[in-house]
Amino acid sequence: MINKLIENIKKTEAPIVVGLDPMLDYVPSHIREQSFNDCGETLEGAAMAIWRYNKEIIDAVYDLIPAVKPQIAMYEQFGLPGLAVFKNTVDYCKAKGLVVIGDIKRGDIGSTSAAYATGHIGKTKVGDNYISAFDEDFITVNPYLGTDGIKPFADVCRTEHKGMFILVKTSNPSSGEFQDRLIDGVPLYEHVAAKVAEWGSDVMGDDYSYVGAVVGATYPEMGKVLRNIMPKSYILVPGYGAQGGKGSDLGNFFNKDGLGAIVNSSRGIIAAYKQDKYAAYGEKGFADASRAAVLDMKEDLKQAWM
Amino acid sequence: MINKLIENIKKTEAPIVVGLDPMLDYVPSHIREQSFNDCGETLEGAAMAIWRYNKEIIDAVYDLIPAVKPQIAMYEQFGLPGLAVFKNTVDYCKAKGLVVIGDIKRGDIGSTSAAYATGHIGKTKVGDNYISAFDEDFITVNPYLGTDGIKPFADVCRTEHKGMFILVKTSNPSSGEFQDRLIDGVPLYEHVAAKVAEWGSDVMGDDYSYVGAVVGATYPEMGKVLRNIMPKSYILVPGYGAQGGKGSDLGNFFNKDGLGAIVNSSRGIIAAYKQDKYAAYGEKGFADASRAAVLDMKEDLKQAWM
Repeated sequence: MINKLIENIKKTEAPIVVGLDPMLDYVPSHIREQSFNDCGETLEGAAMAIWRYNKEIIDAVYDLIPAVKPQIAMYEQFGLPGLAVFKNTVDYCKAKGLVVIGDIKRGDIGSTSAAYATGHIGKTKVGDNYISAFDEDFITVNPYLGTDGIKPFADVCRTEHKGMFILVKTSNPSSGEFQDRLIDGVPLYEHVAAKVAEWGSDVMGDDYSYVGAVVGATYPEMGKVLRNIMPKSYILVPGYGAQGGKGSDLGNFFNKDGLGAIVNSSRGIIAAYKQDKYAAYGEKGFADASRAAVLDMKEDLKQAWM
Repeated sequence: MINKLIENIKKTEAPIVVGLDPMLDYVPSHIREQSFNDCGETLEGAAMAIWRYNKEIIDAVYDLIPAVKPQIAMYEQFGLPGLAVFKNTVDYCKAKGLVVIGDIKRGDIGSTSAAYATGHIGKTKVGDNYISAFDEDFITVNPYLGTDGIKPFADVCRTEHKGMFILVKTSNPSSGEFQDRLIDGVPLYEHVAAKVAEWGSDVMGDDYSYVGAVVGATYPEMGKVLRNIMPKSYILVPGYGAQGGKGSDLGNFFNKDGLGAIVNSSRGIIAAYKQDKYAAYGEKGFADASRAAVLDMKEDLKQAWM
């Protein structure tokens, strides 16, 4: 799947992942109202609104981008109907040829991590059948529990040719509270990065590992160091756009081959119509605004990787 | 909800939480076969088997214990039907008067943590309605992202009088890989514990905070230090039984008032019938075996807290 991700990136010339992190107040009022009319002001109604919103955005941008990253929390908040829309979104995007990164940030002790790995990127054994439950292509994983919490994910990546991105340095303001603390003179995130390189070393695609890392766009100087520690790991870079990162800051995350990083934008794309810059599209033109925002992001990112 | 947890513990005289972490191969064959006959060898069939298994165990032990801890990964691996059973299990246990700790180990940047908090312990706003999605009483949370990843959970705990347990020192063999590393001469888990005490200080029930901690039974000497760093935090102690911890090792996790800790056993209770000790109950008597195992655990734990 890392090979397919790279192939998609080369084809679109856009190291972009669109974060499908819908908040109900991003959804234009005509879609919200229609969905509440159809299903009531219920979890079902909210989930229906999210689904219609996602689908229009996906239809408008899928040919420009290699991958999407639905953030499962935004669906989980709407309970079972929300998670059904998460699954529909995964399936719909895959049918469009997109690589789907499930942003689930799971991680637990060994047997529990194995259950998450099975449910999200593997196949669950039921009687004599092996059944995919959520079936994303990649997932994000939290490293706090160490190797035996990660290994079950790596094992499923190997057998299913799927992938994961492990949190190394996150994009939020207080990420440094633990991640930046020095251990033997080296920040924790570098220790985690060294482990990512180790965990990924025997789970290789053609040129890059199935095991990648999350490093926030808000820390370009750390990107340089981390790029060197994990030369074979793809870096998923959140924090572009709404969180403050811009293309000219992101050169450090890429390798000399122009590969090695994929930059996420969520609100900046899916709620583009709310920005002054794209206001002319209006609420009803929200999906076209998203397309324009993707094209602008593609142009901006050329400063980083070309 | 911390007050209700303590009230339940006092009433049952058992600082025990039963981990409802069902694996399909724990489920006795007669239930599996009946469920596969009813729903096929499908995710629905697996979920039905898990539900029937859970329900019999809950019916057999609910009067002996204060709380249960369903591990969501074990349900998530069966996709949407599995998560529907997770929700049914939460609701059924609450109707029986049990406190429900959703073992979800979520944690993300602020806005995403807010969505998880809303979905699991809060209420989701849809139009003019506020709707509970999963509605656990407590959840478990991962601290790797720092304060702004935790604060949204604490905010919901405060308004909804719910609670959380933050991972401090986990029970798995490689937990030390990052958690034990020294920062300014002090292990990372102690730094996290100090933050837990700080985060919990303004989210107080009568005697204990809504913000607790997870500390593995497998590290009793660390329990002593952590108990002192977080005097007002309840400690959720996994790793008893199948993972190696025993009652006489657990005194350090409790305060002098006999409170302050609640010890989890999962496989040791729910799959008790598979142990030699309870083999006489047979597969069909699996729920009675679970009851016997709870009574034995209660007796064993008296060494720790009485």
